[in-house]
Parts: sequence; C-alpha cells; structure tokens
Amino acid sequence: MHFIQKTFRLKSFKRGFHLITKDIKNEIPELSNVSIGILHVFLHHTTASLTINENTDPTVREDFESHMNIMIPENAAYYKHQSEEPDNMPGHIKSSVMGVNLTIPVTNGKLNLGTWQGVYLCEHRNRAMTRKITLTLIGQ
Amino acid sequence: MHFIQKTFRLKSFKRGFHLITKDIKNEIPELSNVSIGILHVFLHHTTASLTINENTDPTVREDFESHMNIMIPENAAYYKHQSEEPDNMPGHIKSSVMGVNLTIPVTNGKLNLGTWQGVYLCEHRNRAMTRKITLTLIGQ
Amino acid sequence: MHFIQKTFRLKSFKRGFHLITKDIKNEIPELSNVSIGILHVFLHHTTASLTINENTDPTVREDFESHMNIMIPENAAYYKHQSEEPDNMPGHIKSSVMGVNLTIPVTNGKLNLGTWQGVYLCEHRNRAMTRKITLTLIGQ
Repeated sequence: MHFIQKTFRLKSFKRGFHLITKDIKNEIPELSNVSIGILHVFLHHTTASLTINENTDPTVREDFESHMNIMIPENAAYYKHQSEEPDNMPGHIKSSVMGVNLTIPVTNGKLNLGTWQGVYLCEHRNRAMTRKITLTLIGQ
Repeated sequence: MHFIQKTFRLKSFKRGFHLITKDIKNEIPELSNVSIGILHVFLHHTTASLTINENTDPTVREDFESHMNIMIPENAAYYKHQSEEPDNMPGHIKSSVMGVNLTIPVTNGKLNLGTWQGVYLCEHRNRAMTRKITLTLIGQ
Repeated sequence: MHFIQKTFRLKSFKRGFHLITKDIKNEIPELSNVSIGILHVFLHHTTASLTINENTDPTVREDFESHMNIMIPENAAYYKHQSEEPDNMPGHIKSSVMGVNLTIPVTNGKLNLGTWQGVYLCEHRNRAMTRKITLTLIGQ
C-alpha cells in the first residue's frame, strides 16, 4: 500500500491553457512503484483550473482560451464583484467550470492517460503567479 | 488505514451558491486521524452541484448565480423537457457543468484547501430542498 | 483492502448523451465485495466526456445535446484548430466542461448513486467511435 503526497509550485504561466503533464510526472517518481492506483491532482487556487485535453496541437489550447473568454466574459454588467481587476470574476467562474481537481488512473507504474490526453493548467489571470498543486498517490 | 464513510443532509438552501466547508468538516471529525489521504464529497442529486471557489466575498457567489443563469437560461425554445418547472432543465445542465463530485487532499489531519478556497453547494432550484451528501475518507 | 482495475471499451454511440451506468456495473462485479470505498471512472479521450445526471427521461439527454451545441458552437470564427472536422474543436471544449473523470461512492457492495442519478457517456463527435474507460475500485 502506498499513500504518498507531494506539494509543489509550478513556474508562473501566462494567461491561457498550458500542458503540465511532465511537471506532474517529475514531481512523483514514486508512480513507478504502483501497479494499480489513482493519482489525485489538486490546485489550491480559485482563478486557475485543471483539465485534461488534447496534448499535441497548440491551436487547441489557444481556442480554449478564445472560447472561454466569450462564454465567460470580462466586465459583464451584472458582475457585482468589481473590487479586483476585470479578469478576476470571470477567472473564478472559469475555474469552477473547468474544476480544480483531477483523478487519473495509475497502471503498471505509469499515469494511464489516453494517447492524446495531457493535463492542462488553465491560467485565467493576466498577471503570472506561481500556482500550488498537491499530488496524492494511492495505490498498491 | 482508514476507510470512513458518512452520509448526511444539508439544511435546505435557497437558489444560489453557498459555502458548506464547515458543514463538511463537522460531519467528519475523523479527518484529524489522517496524516495523508483524500476526502471524496459526493452529492446525490441532479439539479444541484458542488464546486470549490472563493470563500470570503459574498458578491462572488452572487455573480456565479447571475452568470450561470445567462449561460444556461430558463425557457430556452429548444428544451423538450418541459414537464417540470422552468428551473428544472437548466438545473440539470448547471449540475453537470459544475459537477457533483469533489476530491480534496487531507494532510496532517486537515482538509488541505487553498487559503481562499471553500466548498460550495450550488442550489439550482427555486424551491428549497434538503440535499444529501456522502463523504468518503481514505487515508492513513 | 481491494485495489481492482478494469479497462474496457463501450459500444460506439451516436453523438449525444447516453446512459452507461449498467455497462459500468457489468464490468466490475467485484463491487459486491466492497462495504466502503470509491469507484473511479476515467475516459481516455478528448472529444467525449462523462457526467452524472438524470437517469429516466430521454428528453433531458436530448436537451443536454441541444444546449451544449449552442453554448459551445461549431465553426466559431475564432477557432484556429481547423485541420479536423467542424465537430472536433467544440468536442474538445465540451469534453473539458463536462470532464473525463468521475468518482462515485461504493457502499455495501453497490454504487451509491442518488435515486435519479445515472452515468452519461457524452459523445461529442458525429462519427461513432468506441470509447475506452478504466475503472479503479478502491475499498475495503
């Protein structure tokens, strides 16, 4: 039985959608000891998020940014939370639509993602900040 | 090794987004016995949801309600599911966009949320109902 | 302690939202041996998704399809990812809005879903493909 937990900070990313699969794997080499399990990935923030999507073509990640900015716009007339910058309130909503927690199967010592799947850090703020992640590996 | 499961009902909330972090912690004092683990939070309903977001400013939660009502409106001409009240079908869609299951790391006897993170019960119906949650704590 | 993992392929579904609760249960009869636990359900694709919602009225699932097609349209002028069919890029975004991973409590040998809850496979592509799922059961 393995219960392993690691907390780390990503480098700061600019606003947009960014692949972080390698950053996650690098932080938890103990994956290689687990034959069956799950890796829980948790982001400790409310204006960024995590998702799993296409891991190759950068235009997919650019289109995510374009579409999310239309689906959840800045400066909507009905926003009451105006005390912070215009990217703050839509950043909160985007974060909940994408989510801040993922769980990925672990099989034979590896993250068991699909061929085209990668983990994205979705940075919804203009000013780059480092973002904190906690990984919890549960397996045998 | 700990495997602890609790099912409880929240008090009924009015339509909107509501902080329930304390309700969850109160239901599972066994958190204090776990040094490394995860807490799984599951909502047994299809017109309410769970998310993690900003835990202080109530206008953030009001803006969630306003925006979700525009992004997923009532009385859309294309809705075929008209047998229930107008808040029913958008409530189903909102529930899936936000989700009904969360997993949160547990570290040194505590929920390991970010400084600004809290758990929201998102009530998408007008008529207040009590909502049922099952907590599953897995840890060592 | 049980750590059980199964990978299987669904039959191919047409574009839309489809109940797969029974398919999941059939793949993992070991559920009956678990008194307390969780079942992790993971979809290995980036243009389909998983969600939990209403398990009876088929018009609910039709309305999901109609609404998602408006909220995340095909052929948006701002999409740069144009190398594939028009359902590809919105399929990626829909997949992340719904998500590809679910965790469901297991109680007394059964999936502990709400009375009205079922698991949906959300197929966002026009051409039917078989979709791969990995189930991980962790429990005692």
